[in-house]
Amino acid sequence: MKLALFNDFQLGVIVDDVIYEIGSHLFGHFHQGIGFCPMVQLIAEFEAYRSEIEKKLHEYPAYALADVRLRQPVKKPGKIVAAPVNYVSHQKEMKVEHTAKGLGFFLKAPSSIIGPNDTIVLPDPNRRFDHELELAFVIGKTAKNVKAENAYDYIFGYTGLMDVTLRPDETHHEERCLRKSFDTFTPMGPWIVTKEEVADPNNINMVLTVNGEVRQRVNTKEMICSVAELLEIYSHIMTLEPGDVITTGTPDGVGPIHDGDVVSMEIEGIGSYSVRVSLAPNAAVLR
Amino acid sequence: MKLALFNDFQLGVIVDDVIYEIGSHLFGHFHQGIGFCPMVQLIAEFEAYRSEIEKKLHEYPAYALADVRLRQPVKKPGKIVAAPVNYVSHQKEMKVEHTAKGLGFFLKAPSSIIGPNDTIVLPDPNRRFDHELELAFVIGKTAKNVKAENAYDYIFGYTGLMDVTLRPDETHHEERCLRKSFDTFTPMGPWIVTKEEVADPNNINMVLTVNGEVRQRVNTKEMICSVAELLEIYSHIMTLEPGDVITTGTPDGVGPIHDGDVVSMEIEGIGSYSVRVSLAPNAAVLR
Repeated sequence: MKLALFNDFQLGVIVDDVIYEIGSHLFGHFHQGIGFCPMVQLIAEFEAYRSEIEKKLHEYPAYALADVRLRQPVKKPGKIVAAPVNYVSHQKEMKVEHTAKGLGFFLKAPSSIIGPNDTIVLPDPNRRFDHELELAFVIGKTAKNVKAENAYDYIFGYTGLMDVTLRPDETHHEERCLRKSFDTFTPMGPWIVTKEEVADPNNINMVLTVNGEVRQRVNTKEMICSVAELLEIYSHIMTLEPGDVITTGTPDGVGPIHDGDVVSMEIEGIGSYSVRVSLAPNAAVLR
Repeated sequence: MKLALFNDFQLGVIVDDVIYEIGSHLFGHFHQGIGFCPMVQLIAEFEAYRSEIEKKLHEYPAYALADVRLRQPVKKPGKIVAAPVNYVSHQKEMKVEHTAKGLGFFLKAPSSIIGPNDTIVLPDPNRRFDHELELAFVIGKTAKNVKAENAYDYIFGYTGLMDVTLRPDETHHEERCLRKSFDTFTPMGPWIVTKEEVADPNNINMVLTVNGEVRQRVNTKEMICSVAELLEIYSHIMTLEPGDVITTGTPDGVGPIHDGDVVSMEIEGIGSYSVRVSLAPNAAVLR
């Protein structure tokens, strides 16, 4: 199943070029306070809702996919956990050292997330900002101390994520979680593909282009830690919760993006999207 | 006003030794889906609710404060933003260098939060874990690119936070956001004191004890960046949202905690609490 949020964060199921709005039917009786996300509500109770959605799909309001604004598929994840260096090619490129496994993580601010039709806004004309292409997965069930062999029980599905990054320079040594947490620095989408439709997340071709030129191309089989290993490592440190997003790291080829660029990503079997890049009108030199 | 969450995350107002349960009245008609926090809902609409709460206070169900379990005053903050080294005394103790201002931040996983009656659980018998005493403030209004002179318009109130930390050693070099994000590593409470009851957050005495012995004692006037400066710096990077927690850094005196310890903090004009420390029954050596 392909699930998305669209327009005013309505919940939809995508079949070919049609999106069916299912959220009003499932959650229309909710008084939707701050913090409510229909996707997270669905994820947490997916087994209870699934057959109803499949049975009644063609009764729900339908829109042409081309006519809606897709949003990030989780409105505001509880946390965005990112593998810092999970491809040997990127490790070499960045000249960083890591033991083979157990490379830790950093957190991205959930407020940095945007949708696949949105715009990356660069906050400073004098610093370098890079694109990073990543496969992400979304947690389906509360996970603590999970072994890799059981990891797939806790995964809901997969999506595409760009981990936009402020590069450090000689005079600035900001930590990763700052460099990656600016507003708009986490484009995510175009939707979530549920796990049963993804044969092997550790064998997926991905490509990222800037203005049509290929900058990053990889197969996820080159990851140092597999999807299941990442879930094991992180769930031993923190409780992972429905709707949390884990992003699996970027391969080599990271490079700068500039005002006016169009950055596109395509993940085999998942989906593709393009975001524009602009410079903030009030762009200020960062301290 | 002193506001708390208690028992099953019910919302209460504290007057002396009584807690009035106000959430059922204000939000009883909400379908409280995943992500709903009555405190965040109140914070975001505080001006609309305030006079009603004050007027009807003695009509709400009342409990003896001593008889309830206080929880963290925000169930699951959207983000927990932390100043890494905001006291010169701690900077010297940790032998780290920082320019005087603009010291950045790290993020703590919201899943690490616990309440003032809960227990810090140490995940590994062979690593060192430290206590850190901090004043925290809670965001009241969406804040982006806010100047320090307007910062207090965006602050809702203040609370006490312990930033429990895995210390790095010779063979481990985990980033701060990992070392501080283990489950139970963010005790917070005992409640939120709204800003108008705190004359100057940059002039507050705080003390932390372990088993009754003073380990950290400081006045917040020794902070490198004031509360208002932190809000300015962080709001230029990220949108701060109602219920987000900013914690202002720890002074010197950090030290190890062990199974069986009782760690207590007291913040002048805010409140005090004690948490126990235990070793996880399935404690494993971290990778």
